[in-house]
Amino acid sequence: MPRTPVWSAIARTLETEIAERLYAPGAKLPTEAELAARFDVNRHTVRRALADLSERGLVRARRGAGVFVDIAPTDYPLGRRVRFHQNLRAAGHAPEKRVLRIERRLARTVEIEALRLDGAAEVIVYEGLSLSDGIAIAHFESVFPSARLPEMEAALAQTVSVTEALSRAGVADYVRADTRITAERATATQAHHLSLREGDPLLRTTSRNETPDGVPVERGSTWFAGDRVALTYAPETA
Amino acid sequence: MPRTPVWSAIARTLETEIAERLYAPGAKLPTEAELAARFDVNRHTVRRALADLSERGLVRARRGAGVFVDIAPTDYPLGRRVRFHQNLRAAGHAPEKRVLRIERRLARTVEIEALRLDGAAEVIVYEGLSLSDGIAIAHFESVFPSARLPEMEAALAQTVSVTEALSRAGVADYVRADTRITAERATATQAHHLSLREGDPLLRTTSRNETPDGVPVERGSTWFAGDRVALTYAPETA
Repeated sequence: MPRTPVWSAIARTLETEIAERLYAPGAKLPTEAELAARFDVNRHTVRRALADLSERGLVRARRGAGVFVDIAPTDYPLGRRVRFHQNLRAAGHAPEKRVLRIERRLARTVEIEALRLDGAAEVIVYEGLSLSDGIAIAHFESVFPSARLPEMEAALAQTVSVTEALSRAGVADYVRADTRITAERATATQAHHLSLREGDPLLRTTSRNETPDGVPVERGSTWFAGDRVALTYAPETA
Repeated sequence: MPRTPVWSAIARTLETEIAERLYAPGAKLPTEAELAARFDVNRHTVRRALADLSERGLVRARRGAGVFVDIAPTDYPLGRRVRFHQNLRAAGHAPEKRVLRIERRLARTVEIEALRLDGAAEVIVYEGLSLSDGIAIAHFESVFPSARLPEMEAALAQTVSVTEALSRAGVADYVRADTRITAERATATQAHHLSLREGDPLLRTTSRNETPDGVPVERGSTWFAGDRVALTYAPETA
């Protein structure tokens, strides 16, 4: 079993306490001297732990004022009607999307199955970043069946909203058919896009949207930054 | 942006293809020579990538036969009625639990809030490992209100099943009130318990169970090995 350095154990303890809201978003952490006394270490070790938390965007040092909790994880409700912009606005955040890529290619086997396509069908790929209050919280890649939605590529070029683009392509309404949730390491590219370190944990959802009549219209994966988003699930309101 | 070694990029590509079932559980991977040709690298690099996948339990080399996909991620459905043993048995797996710790301590602030306790209330802590087909898939820690469930500590000493222990302690039925899902790094201890590497991604759920009348009876967190479990969510059947 690999040995954890003391500063790393201290960083993890503080991270848990921030996650559990012992220190709420915006709250001031104890001083370096207080933390050194609490953990019975020297101030150099405390500084190393705080630097690690700061690097990962959990705390922010304000010159002369102290170190403050910086990140309020965005709650993202799972449900039958998942809408990125609506979800974030309802929680008091400013949503934004940045397009990385819109292109056509042949569908992969898993996409053919999920979207119930013919063998050599084409899909429209839509890749981008989701932001909350100006901070990138997720990387996404969705595919849409191009034969079924001939106007989707043009629609995506005009609006970043999937809901709006689907509406322009003739899909007035859609619902979440199923979702799989896994944890993965950030690739170097994802780490770059999300200001993380390569290998940092991501929460991945893979899901399928369909019309209320059951016609598949989208298959997509979203990789959420593990420390910036909590998926929430309340059976009563799902 | 850190540079990824070639073997690591190859391992990641194969990992994605396994996750997307291009190579299904039990399937044979292409030979080293075929993979070397495909990625335009030498066989030493391919071996390094396969060794990495093997170390992480994704593939297994069988002497003289080749390299096979080893892991079928266990699907774990989210829903109003979450029961570990029932969930796994329904999916054709053999469930098992290993107890690490049963003890009493004062409730923490988040626990007091979640369980709606008085200030200085005690909780019973139940920590252990969940196994599927003999492989540890999750580490869990639950707390139960001891004043509300005076027989719970004795019940847990007699059965590993939370459902069964709650029943013996007088809670005939319970439902999942809410769940938060995040991604975290495995601590050294968790890596040891789950045969992972420290820092590997874990899928964490934090949830609350209550009686059908709304009395909280359990608050718990479960850390699932990121590559061994997929939480699934189907709104229609939730």
